[in-house]
Amino acid sequence: MADRIFRINMTELTTSIEEVPADWMGHGGRGLTSTIVAAEVEPTCHPLGAKNKLVIAPGLLSGTVAANSGRISCGAKSPLTGTIKEANAGGTAAQMLARLGCKAIIIEGQPREDRWYSILIDEEDVTISEETDLVGKGNFAVVEEAGRRFGDRHGIITIGPAGEMKMLAANISIKDPDGKLRSCGRGGLGAVLGAKRVKFIAIAPTDAKVEIADPEKFREANRVFTKALVDNPISQALGTYGTNVLVNIINEAGALPTRNFSAGQFDGHEKISGETMHDIIVERDGRPKHNCHPGCVIQCSQIYNDKDRKYKTSGFEYESIWAMGADCCVDNLDLIAEADHLMDDIGIDTIETSVAMGVAMEAGVLEFGDGEGICRILREEIAAGTPLGRIIGCGAGSVGRAFGVTRVPVVKNQAIPAYDPRAVKGIGITYATSTQGADHTMGYTIATNILGVGGNIDPLGKEGQVELSRNLQIATAAIDSTGMCLFIAFAALDDATCLPALVDMINARYGISLTADDVTSLGKTILKTERAFNQAAGFTSRDDRLPEFFREEPLPPHNVVWDMTDEEIDAFWDFS
Amino acid sequence: MADRIFRINMTELTTSIEEVPADWMGHGGRGLTSTIVAAEVEPTCHPLGAKNKLVIAPGLLSGTVAANSGRISCGAKSPLTGTIKEANAGGTAAQMLARLGCKAIIIEGQPREDRWYSILIDEEDVTISEETDLVGKGNFAVVEEAGRRFGDRHGIITIGPAGEMKMLAANISIKDPDGKLRSCGRGGLGAVLGAKRVKFIAIAPTDAKVEIADPEKFREANRVFTKALVDNPISQALGTYGTNVLVNIINEAGALPTRNFSAGQFDGHEKISGETMHDIIVERDGRPKHNCHPGCVIQCSQIYNDKDRKYKTSGFEYESIWAMGADCCVDNLDLIAEADHLMDDIGIDTIETSVAMGVAMEAGVLEFGDGEGICRILREEIAAGTPLGRIIGCGAGSVGRAFGVTRVPVVKNQAIPAYDPRAVKGIGITYATSTQGADHTMGYTIATNILGVGGNIDPLGKEGQVELSRNLQIATAAIDSTGMCLFIAFAALDDATCLPALVDMINARYGISLTADDVTSLGKTILKTERAFNQAAGFTSRDDRLPEFFREEPLPPHNVVWDMTDEEIDAFWDFS
Repeated sequence: MADRIFRINMTELTTSIEEVPADWMGHGGRGLTSTIVAAEVEPTCHPLGAKNKLVIAPGLLSGTVAANSGRISCGAKSPLTGTIKEANAGGTAAQMLARLGCKAIIIEGQPREDRWYSILIDEEDVTISEETDLVGKGNFAVVEEAGRRFGDRHGIITIGPAGEMKMLAANISIKDPDGKLRSCGRGGLGAVLGAKRVKFIAIAPTDAKVEIADPEKFREANRVFTKALVDNPISQALGTYGTNVLVNIINEAGALPTRNFSAGQFDGHEKISGETMHDIIVERDGRPKHNCHPGCVIQCSQIYNDKDRKYKTSGFEYESIWAMGADCCVDNLDLIAEADHLMDDIGIDTIETSVAMGVAMEAGVLEFGDGEGICRILREEIAAGTPLGRIIGCGAGSVGRAFGVTRVPVVKNQAIPAYDPRAVKGIGITYATSTQGADHTMGYTIATNILGVGGNIDPLGKEGQVELSRNLQIATAAIDSTGMCLFIAFAALDDATCLPALVDMINARYGISLTADDVTSLGKTILKTERAFNQAAGFTSRDDRLPEFFREEPLPPHNVVWDMTDEEIDAFWDFS
Repeated sequence: MADRIFRINMTELTTSIEEVPADWMGHGGRGLTSTIVAAEVEPTCHPLGAKNKLVIAPGLLSGTVAANSGRISCGAKSPLTGTIKEANAGGTAAQMLARLGCKAIIIEGQPREDRWYSILIDEEDVTISEETDLVGKGNFAVVEEAGRRFGDRHGIITIGPAGEMKMLAANISIKDPDGKLRSCGRGGLGAVLGAKRVKFIAIAPTDAKVEIADPEKFREANRVFTKALVDNPISQALGTYGTNVLVNIINEAGALPTRNFSAGQFDGHEKISGETMHDIIVERDGRPKHNCHPGCVIQCSQIYNDKDRKYKTSGFEYESIWAMGADCCVDNLDLIAEADHLMDDIGIDTIETSVAMGVAMEAGVLEFGDGEGICRILREEIAAGTPLGRIIGCGAGSVGRAFGVTRVPVVKNQAIPAYDPRAVKGIGITYATSTQGADHTMGYTIATNILGVGGNIDPLGKEGQVELSRNLQIATAAIDSTGMCLFIAFAALDDATCLPALVDMINARYGISLTADDVTSLGKTILKTERAFNQAAGFTSRDDRLPEFFREEPLPPHNVVWDMTDEEIDAFWDFS
């Protein structure tokens, strides 16, 4: 069965299943969402209007047995940043869509009437139904009720109240193998789905498999690839402590943004560290190791139980813990877990929302350290859509504007995540130049700046930072197209067998013969496509800048400022 | 006494009185504020940070007896639009500053401590004092208390609670000859003064006069100029009905934006018209004719009393009445007057705030037509700085983002005022291309599109609109530099003696010999200076666009859309 495009028109409430245009064939995941958004969306359109489109795409390897290939990409013009945007997550949807022969879902238009809808995708058809019961409900209730309606094996893509209310930090949640949630977190894509008035998409299971042109070659390549992943020491650390292994590492590096980015170390770091988290999880019969999608061999996720040994949250990431923890000065992991759970249910980006809380703390809305206050605001303000909830639910920039705060850590209106760019210059280049606003996953220089993966580049120096960010942003754009988890990058940078095996799998899947250079070209093409969209939307190099206070305020303990010049930053784009 | 620059550094809490640099000598009013902001403010700085500067400048003719020369300009980088910004108003400050030999006040830096200050300017010195009593107080209380402290003859420049809270629609208020208020309304300059932590500036009266190089020539020119003004039929209509004479005219033209810009005519137009207002004013012993600054011969202001014949508001402008009236569907002039009074006291732009109310009505925050609701929100939310108050007090764009509304009438985040660009294409060109966001006063094509002044250009056609807006924007930039009220433009366009007399007055004041062409050149230079600032701040032609819905939704009764192409709009800047 050839892959097809599932097009859903929410103005006409019609669906169609279309052949894949030839020049979209070589794309998947982010490469495909960005290609389609660039081709079909007016760059200057209102992101919450009828002209924006939400594109959902599995990766090039999704649906196969390739290790770690279960990421799903959502893309659109972002209502938070105004740029093109892709956010990806694990869960079961990517593999299920791929097995249904879905190359991408394109959701376009906007209902004329004030009604909500759900979408069912199965082997027969794509069906739009009016939805009433689940409107206003949290994501966990959606997954539960959809399970009752359709059975537990259905995949679910859903928005919570934040997306329904079109809050600019709303995410899109994906059901994971345990019926919990993974988030396409950044850029407010949940608000785009909300603007289409789609509450959730259910995906029926199938016995179909994706076609593999050369099964033998595929199997062998996957064996090599999987070995590279499981042998990698960072993969192993991620499997033990999760991404939260980074709290102590980044604190030690003096780059852990603390108290709304006013210091690089947090006194309470031990209390929220991956090591502490691991002990709590084990003590409470949680699972320190857990996969967010079938076939993951790294298993950086975990299940964190509360004091009564009941499930509280999973996919409890470093960036979320940092944001609610160090940035808001909350040193209580249970409160952070509670907030994480609430944000999963409300369907709102943990990074954007927590950084927004930090700015609100600076504004005096609540005290630094007030973890209970964060949970109260999430429950009573954001979930309820009060004015304060909307201010915070629209992100850090929104809080800054509403309360007249000048220390607002955003680039292109998107919150800067868990690594202070003053103390890790490479990641600052990524924040500044990313086509999607501040986002560490777009070119994770922490690997080389801090973790010594793929070489060593002094995080405090200027030397090599632009090249590092450029190489990683190009590689990331390509990886994000495969459906692979970004964490394969550690093995890819350290083990010479890894990347060729990945390329071999793509070639075996499609019966083609890409080289490593072709993959690099793909990454470059994606970045250029995205940048061209942004330029047509009105973005210039003046938008590729960090906020003023990073240049003005030295960050303890290194007492460093952001000192990359405009010329140095702009040199990022000097590639062909 | 040669004019000087009064520089006030709020970081160091120091003041200095400086010579005027040679290339600032030929500038006044907007020309001077824009020249200084462009010279001294980093275009990419945070508008509410220490690097922005607030410049206050009388016009070239301020302080003389020239008719209508009492406008004062405030300029800065706008926190609302991110562009360079100038807003001017009447009142007594311009003439008083000019007589004290003040070419401009530059307020820079930002206090390190959380304290408020007031500034006293007299013949001896500029003095900064800590202010505690008046912090949090409304503008009327500031004027009253300052009167007690300094005497009633002092000029006052002040911010209300909105400016203190750095709301993006906060204005700067100027005491008028009756101890009431005039507003430098647009662009949130009150938030800039608030960010400097200056509550008010008091200006001591002086017996000094400005020097006139050729008194005889000046007197004669002023006689001709004044005659042109008083003989002009539009001046006369303005004197009788105020600017609110426009409600019926613009309604008749089908260009009165109604119900958040969804129609061009308002059923309740008669109830809020200038004619009705005139009758109410006369019946209640108000003053239909009143001057906002000494020496005005047009007297478009008025004093509007409540039912008990007590003062309610003055300077009750068409644009304010339209915004609270037609745009919010409120047809009760007393409620509109109450809201106008509240906004004067809170110190917030009536256009921005009322258009924001219209967007909030579309979002369901309150019902269209709910004038009591508007007053309640002003009193209980905006004045109190609640989250809802901050959302609305930060303008129409803020409300749109917080509530996910796509029909948001803004350009460069500033609310579109009282003339629908679909039905008056010329003003749409002004909104789109103005260096300062949507602002009718930047190039008031209504004169020619609707009022038949300076020719006739069909408001619904495309022909001639770009040229019209261009010529008027150039002329306006020059007029805004003289300290003259913009309403001299009607006489200037219709009476051949008017403009030469104005130029003669400038020449006689300074002993120079400008020609009419020099004045045009001045206007062009100002526009180019402003645009260069904006470009350096990151603005491009993509920002010179009206919101999407103006292209999509036909406006009744003409059922016209905004159809000027990007190329047509961009041709605005084709001049040298």
